[in-house]
Amino acid sequence: MAHVSIIGTGNMGQAIAGIAGKGPHTVQLIGEDDKGTAVTGDVVVLAIPYGAIRSVIAERGDELKGKVVVDISNPLDFETFDSLLVPADGSAAAEVASALPDSKVLKAFNTTFAATLASGAVGDNTTTVLIAGDDANAKATLADIVTGGGLRAIDAGSLKRARELEAIGFLQLTLGASEKVSWTGGFAVVV
Amino acid sequence: MAHVSIIGTGNMGQAIAGIAGKGPHTVQLIGEDDKGTAVTGDVVVLAIPYGAIRSVIAERGDELKGKVVVDISNPLDFETFDSLLVPADGSAAAEVASALPDSKVLKAFNTTFAATLASGAVGDNTTTVLIAGDDANAKATLADIVTGGGLRAIDAGSLKRARELEAIGFLQLTLGASEKVSWTGGFAVVV
Repeated sequence: MAHVSIIGTGNMGQAIAGIAGKGPHTVQLIGEDDKGTAVTGDVVVLAIPYGAIRSVIAERGDELKGKVVVDISNPLDFETFDSLLVPADGSAAAEVASALPDSKVLKAFNTTFAATLASGAVGDNTTTVLIAGDDANAKATLADIVTGGGLRAIDAGSLKRARELEAIGFLQLTLGASEKVSWTGGFAVVV
Repeated sequence: MAHVSIIGTGNMGQAIAGIAGKGPHTVQLIGEDDKGTAVTGDVVVLAIPYGAIRSVIAERGDELKGKVVVDISNPLDFETFDSLLVPADGSAAAEVASALPDSKVLKAFNTTFAATLASGAVGDNTTTVLIAGDDANAKATLADIVTGGGLRAIDAGSLKRARELEAIGFLQLTLGASEKVSWTGGFAVVV
């Protein structure tokens, strides 16, 4: 059983809280106005836009030491929808890991639209959360939370694979924004 | 109606020939031993590994002028399965386009395993071919070939998006090789 703190109360944060709450886990949901609230979770999900990560880490970096920290961001240039805001050979997750050397940083949830996290399905397929990271125990803990919520979890490899997960998230957002896929669809994973 | 030349007779070349042949198109399949055979197609699919592209372009570059050329490669380092062999901000398709300035270069078919091209399905989902390129007419021509074969085609954007398509192909190959997805599964697209 894990205690999960979710920083961010948008669509994604609420959907992830719903998933964690379905299993035998406890959930703390921390909003923008909760700056004085201490992060109590062993697993902390940064359910915030890429642009907000830096300030949250500046405020809460000490609190995140020793914890599993999950980056879900898609660091897309939303003005052009034509590039990412991170170095081509890097990722937002790599930046988070660099800023939080004493945390176990994972990339997850960025390849699934909020609606498919909430419903548990992409079309007729079980929603699959791809998890990348360098700490096997941290990945197993997050996979337990995901499967406890009725979704499928797949270990996508080391944190280097966050580059590919962010590329998938990027392309999927462009397909959604251009109405080539619906916000209840997108990429499904067939095992 | 298009005349499609496919260079490469492996699993992918044969699957793509099968797709093109189901529609009202004619197909020329060119193998390794057919070096003297002229490319007659208006659409030419390079169904060859990334490492073979350079020599085929050296041999046949003049023949490819004015044609639609489709790069299907996944430029993966198959020794390590840990990186791509192209610059992080580039793609194999960008290299092909640079080497063939008088062709209309598209990226397609690299996000679908051969078995899902042949069967037309990824699990219960219609196999979807994501097509990136800078020439709208060329993309429409290839989309016609794909849909004529019973598959779905989606315009994934400009040739810059080949970077993301190759990231998807890369990750999907790592998931296949590590048996996290089967070679009849992988990424499906739900519209």
